[in-house]
Amino acid sequence: MKIKHFILTLLFGTLSLGTLAASVEHPSLTLTRDGVKAIRKRADKAPLFDASLERVMAEAQTALGRPLEMPVPKDGGGGYTHEAHKRNYYDMYYCGLAYQVSGDKKYARKVEEMLLAYAQLYPTLDWHPLTNSPVRGRLFWQTLNESVWLVHLSMAYDCVYDAIKPAGRKVIENGVFRPACSFIMEGTPENRANEDTFNKMHNHGTWAQAAVGMAAIVMGDDALLDKALYGSRPGGGFLRQMDSLFSPEGYFTEGAYYLRYAIWPFMLFAESLQHNRPELKVFEYRDGILFKAMDVLVQLAYHGEFFHFNDALQKGYWAQELICATDVVYANCPSKDYLLSIVRDYQKQVNVSDAGFRTALDLAAGQAKDPVFRSGLYTDGPEGHDGAFAVLRCGDDDALTFKATSHGLSHGHYDKLTFAWYDSGNEVISDYGASRFLNIEAKNKGHYTRENKSYAMTTVAHNTLVVDETSHFQGKISISERYSPVLLAYSDDDRAFQYVAALDTAATPGVRMQRWMGLARIPFLSGPLIIDLLKAESAGSHSYDYPIHYNGHMVSLSVPYQRAMETMRTMGSAPGYKHLWVEAEAKGGKDCTSYTWICGTKLYSITTATTMDSQIYLLRSGANDPDFNLRSEPSFLLRETGRGNHLFASCIETHGHYDLQVELASDMERSCTGVTVLSDDASGMKVRYDFKGGNSVTATVDYATNTMKINY
Amino acid sequence: MKIKHFILTLLFGTLSLGTLAASVEHPSLTLTRDGVKAIRKRADKAPLFDASLERVMAEAQTALGRPLEMPVPKDGGGGYTHEAHKRNYYDMYYCGLAYQVSGDKKYARKVEEMLLAYAQLYPTLDWHPLTNSPVRGRLFWQTLNESVWLVHLSMAYDCVYDAIKPAGRKVIENGVFRPACSFIMEGTPENRANEDTFNKMHNHGTWAQAAVGMAAIVMGDDALLDKALYGSRPGGGFLRQMDSLFSPEGYFTEGAYYLRYAIWPFMLFAESLQHNRPELKVFEYRDGILFKAMDVLVQLAYHGEFFHFNDALQKGYWAQELICATDVVYANCPSKDYLLSIVRDYQKQVNVSDAGFRTALDLAAGQAKDPVFRSGLYTDGPEGHDGAFAVLRCGDDDALTFKATSHGLSHGHYDKLTFAWYDSGNEVISDYGASRFLNIEAKNKGHYTRENKSYAMTTVAHNTLVVDETSHFQGKISISERYSPVLLAYSDDDRAFQYVAALDTAATPGVRMQRWMGLARIPFLSGPLIIDLLKAESAGSHSYDYPIHYNGHMVSLSVPYQRAMETMRTMGSAPGYKHLWVEAEAKGGKDCTSYTWICGTKLYSITTATTMDSQIYLLRSGANDPDFNLRSEPSFLLRETGRGNHLFASCIETHGHYDLQVELASDMERSCTGVTVLSDDASGMKVRYDFKGGNSVTATVDYATNTMKINY
Repeated sequence: MKIKHFILTLLFGTLSLGTLAASVEHPSLTLTRDGVKAIRKRADKAPLFDASLERVMAEAQTALGRPLEMPVPKDGGGGYTHEAHKRNYYDMYYCGLAYQVSGDKKYARKVEEMLLAYAQLYPTLDWHPLTNSPVRGRLFWQTLNESVWLVHLSMAYDCVYDAIKPAGRKVIENGVFRPACSFIMEGTPENRANEDTFNKMHNHGTWAQAAVGMAAIVMGDDALLDKALYGSRPGGGFLRQMDSLFSPEGYFTEGAYYLRYAIWPFMLFAESLQHNRPELKVFEYRDGILFKAMDVLVQLAYHGEFFHFNDALQKGYWAQELICATDVVYANCPSKDYLLSIVRDYQKQVNVSDAGFRTALDLAAGQAKDPVFRSGLYTDGPEGHDGAFAVLRCGDDDALTFKATSHGLSHGHYDKLTFAWYDSGNEVISDYGASRFLNIEAKNKGHYTRENKSYAMTTVAHNTLVVDETSHFQGKISISERYSPVLLAYSDDDRAFQYVAALDTAATPGVRMQRWMGLARIPFLSGPLIIDLLKAESAGSHSYDYPIHYNGHMVSLSVPYQRAMETMRTMGSAPGYKHLWVEAEAKGGKDCTSYTWICGTKLYSITTATTMDSQIYLLRSGANDPDFNLRSEPSFLLRETGRGNHLFASCIETHGHYDLQVELASDMERSCTGVTVLSDDASGMKVRYDFKGGNSVTATVDYATNTMKINY
Repeated sequence: MKIKHFILTLLFGTLSLGTLAASVEHPSLTLTRDGVKAIRKRADKAPLFDASLERVMAEAQTALGRPLEMPVPKDGGGGYTHEAHKRNYYDMYYCGLAYQVSGDKKYARKVEEMLLAYAQLYPTLDWHPLTNSPVRGRLFWQTLNESVWLVHLSMAYDCVYDAIKPAGRKVIENGVFRPACSFIMEGTPENRANEDTFNKMHNHGTWAQAAVGMAAIVMGDDALLDKALYGSRPGGGFLRQMDSLFSPEGYFTEGAYYLRYAIWPFMLFAESLQHNRPELKVFEYRDGILFKAMDVLVQLAYHGEFFHFNDALQKGYWAQELICATDVVYANCPSKDYLLSIVRDYQKQVNVSDAGFRTALDLAAGQAKDPVFRSGLYTDGPEGHDGAFAVLRCGDDDALTFKATSHGLSHGHYDKLTFAWYDSGNEVISDYGASRFLNIEAKNKGHYTRENKSYAMTTVAHNTLVVDETSHFQGKISISERYSPVLLAYSDDDRAFQYVAALDTAATPGVRMQRWMGLARIPFLSGPLIIDLLKAESAGSHSYDYPIHYNGHMVSLSVPYQRAMETMRTMGSAPGYKHLWVEAEAKGGKDCTSYTWICGTKLYSITTATTMDSQIYLLRSGANDPDFNLRSEPSFLLRETGRGNHLFASCIETHGHYDLQVELASDMERSCTGVTVLSDDASGMKVRYDFKGGNSVTATVDYATNTMKINY
């Protein structure tokens, strides 16, 4: 497959080399001359476009009135100089758009003035004074931001190109665009640190290529464009990114949150290529991989917000990257009419671009269809061989996520076989995501905090097995990135019982762990039932921890517990553990232990097979956190010590109906009364869950066929 | 004033005695014969009514299919028997409505069957076995619920009255209605505990009167109705409740959250009286006090949710009580067209009643107007002499609340002169409200938890002065209910600078405390500025604590602090304090100390004049809480020790603009750099706040004129 793509790449290269310069007209990146004509003639046919344009015009107006600020770079994200240069590129971008739509030269003058000022400043800059990024920029603390800046400058310059005299263009191109391109491609003559990034299969590489490629298109520089497309050295280039960064289904190895970010340069550059090198057929590349990536983004979200695994923050369909991507994908593939609903319900704006205009027109014409949220399996890795991420959905408003992917580059966490549960609008069993306060200067300058590594990334911060208080792969990316779990089973054919399973043998040397998770609709239970069979096998003797992080408030534990009353201590000193306060401790119940919490208007109860030697901890994050970088969040942890093999056999009930309006409550108490492991041997596992009213559910896993079934 | 109302009451009594029996037709409580006729002929003119009716019909359908459940009372709120009897009254109510609208006798049969079953069960019941309420019921753990039950039974019976043969009515009235009325009015012959409640000026009394009165109307029993209206002994009765329970502006002494609950029986009974004793002109009583109460409810809310002071939970315009009240008030006072917006935006349903139908018709006819949220002063007490509650609003989306009311009956807290700040959709500086998990059996059977008294009610759980770690009035309601603060000033004429002030001399013997709070729009600040001058005066030496409870996450403190790292301890053993974990401690800054936190997308910074002897605590609730009854919430506390007089001079900035969509941040750092008390003597106070860029704001309080002004 890799070879095939390489040949394809060569072929495209041959076809397209040297075809650009003759055809370049301006604008031609995300706006085209024809697009602008249509926009100017639009009448009232696209109200959402009108509203979006009004916002752009208002921003452009504000930009016109803002005095020129060209500070010498000094600060990190959120700091003054960082935000000033960020504001500058948005100002130029908005003014460029305003010029194209209105034809009013004052906007073009503003862009020209700012570009000329950058042409003065930029050549004087050395590397950025802050050294906390391994890939520093000149204007910004990391080259990544420099690429984003150049993408916007290119779009702005594209819009006003024809309004600037050739002499001015020369100053601008020689002062800003060419030096910025060569900096992003290489670095400085003394320090060619950026060359690796530019050719790397990584989203920083995609941004760098989009920046250089879009600048090249505007300047009509085919040779430069080819470097963006095919790399400045073998193995690099934008087209290969589409081979490498996505799995066959369009999953991005860093996860949904970073796919959001990664897709932006893909879409901007692809749309620009579609206008300027249509023969590349970039949207058909790899069987429409960019369209597939868009589908994945929509599916890997709950109530519009991307699932929180890996280094996620709270972002969703409304992020500007998605607004851009949605417009571009819809305009190039109008059969994806569900995207119009996402525009209407979440984004409430479109880009001022050819694609945004088309999107708004069709939305106004009533073409929107509701998206369908499905269960799905998303393999990881360019060939789909590096594990998978699964989502099971059994109702209108739920999602069980199961993560058995590869590490996920620098934003990955040590959380093999972890899961999360979203229901009734809440992230009920949660993933901490990243420890970061984006753009808050006082919090490590807006960057990831030290607790991201010491807590958020550690295994105990996730809902999976921790062996001997040690993170998977000892928390070392150098080891973790070499392994992926093996997907054992996935079935979503029967909506009443779906399941997924995976095996990991590398996360802890000498310990084999497999997890089978089922999502069932049971007639005698009011809500979905999650069945969780997490099995550890080892010749040695270990301490096995099974944490469940949740949102909500403790309701009850089925066994007596000792609450921390006057003083509270941490759970230990191991990575991750040192950040957990022990709010209460207990011994397990004779046959099982149940824990119930409330989240929103529903209750959730986990019942796990235990013995009286099992230890229970109720925990809260925030210990050993000198700078208050951690959120204060609760978890429940079950510990089994001195074990070789152990099966954590649990079920999780969603129950309780609580009508706040009329204060009517029903089904507020958990139903599960017992968990019995009927068999657990080389052939499989069989576990019976007993429920009130003499009901029971038996879950059976058969290793020979890698199947799971339930009976009740 | 009291005498005037008493004469009025006599007059009304004279006019109306004996006029009921002849005129009673059925239905006539909230539905009337004419109303039903209009509803049946409605066509498509009231879509919201249609939708609401559909919901009622679906509920009635479900009720028809539900087997009869008449369990002998055993459980408290949330428990099986409690919820079963609650479900029963809703089932009867919905079936009654369904019968009236559809004319289908099966619904009437269902109501009759259930009423007959109650006629069997009810006479066999003694007092409810649970003894945790001082006012126990028979079916329910407290008489209050019994009254609510009877109100619904009366409405249901009213709907099906004509469909039941006289013999059946006799069984029902003698088996249920009359014994329930006499139980609610008196109790049992051996224990007349309910007589006090029935005649008490309290919302339990209102409910009892509405229940008895509405049952009386249905049965055509004038003498019984008169007892509901004028009391079963002198000083009681529904009309007097309207004199006693509301202040002249319509404020209810228990606060907004309980006004919501209290208004329900007022509205149901008033609407029933309007249909059956129109000559009472109940809606004109006391200059339209019920309409005023409705206005107060709308104003004492933020984003539709009632302010959280006193024993509040999270309820708002969407509560069923409000749906009823909104319909009734609108139908009887259609000039309050803003109520239609509340129906449309928050309630999204109407009652199936004459009033609900009228409301839905006018909403569909486009009569809705947006509500205007204003600053306002709401005096407390029947004559408005018992302090006041104030709300200052300076923008579109904010509210500063200031509480200087009387105690507020059994739901009041020890929080004289406390405040809260709502902004940009969040309760930024918060009031804990009640410690209660409504309807969660595992949490003290859904009742207030013990921590409601030991924490939520204590002074340190509020944003006001605590002297020597002791709650106001030593946390004794018997003392607190005797005193109210004195309102010193209130001004909302100038939207750019509004203020309110009050004085308390009783909360702590020997300590006089006054607080002046201003809300200002300052040209050089991006958000509103709160100025807080909290002054304590005493001949003795005291420890003064100034806590600020907030929602959000700690960003920075202007002085170095010691964080609890490996272990954490409580703040002390005093009431309230024992529930607070000390997350960090610090010494104050030389001239001032600033604390910044983030809530939603904005930052909030409080800067207070301090010395290096000031002590700072960062706290979190949850210590000494054996049953996990407390929410885990943060606070900031400033302590001054060994002081007689002390002025806490603070300002609170709302700042920071953080656009999540485009990741642009501005104004993320606080601006206040210093607080200087320029003068503080017998004539007044003068404080200068310095801000970045050489700006300053000086606040001056003049005791001679009781005015506050600012200069900048």
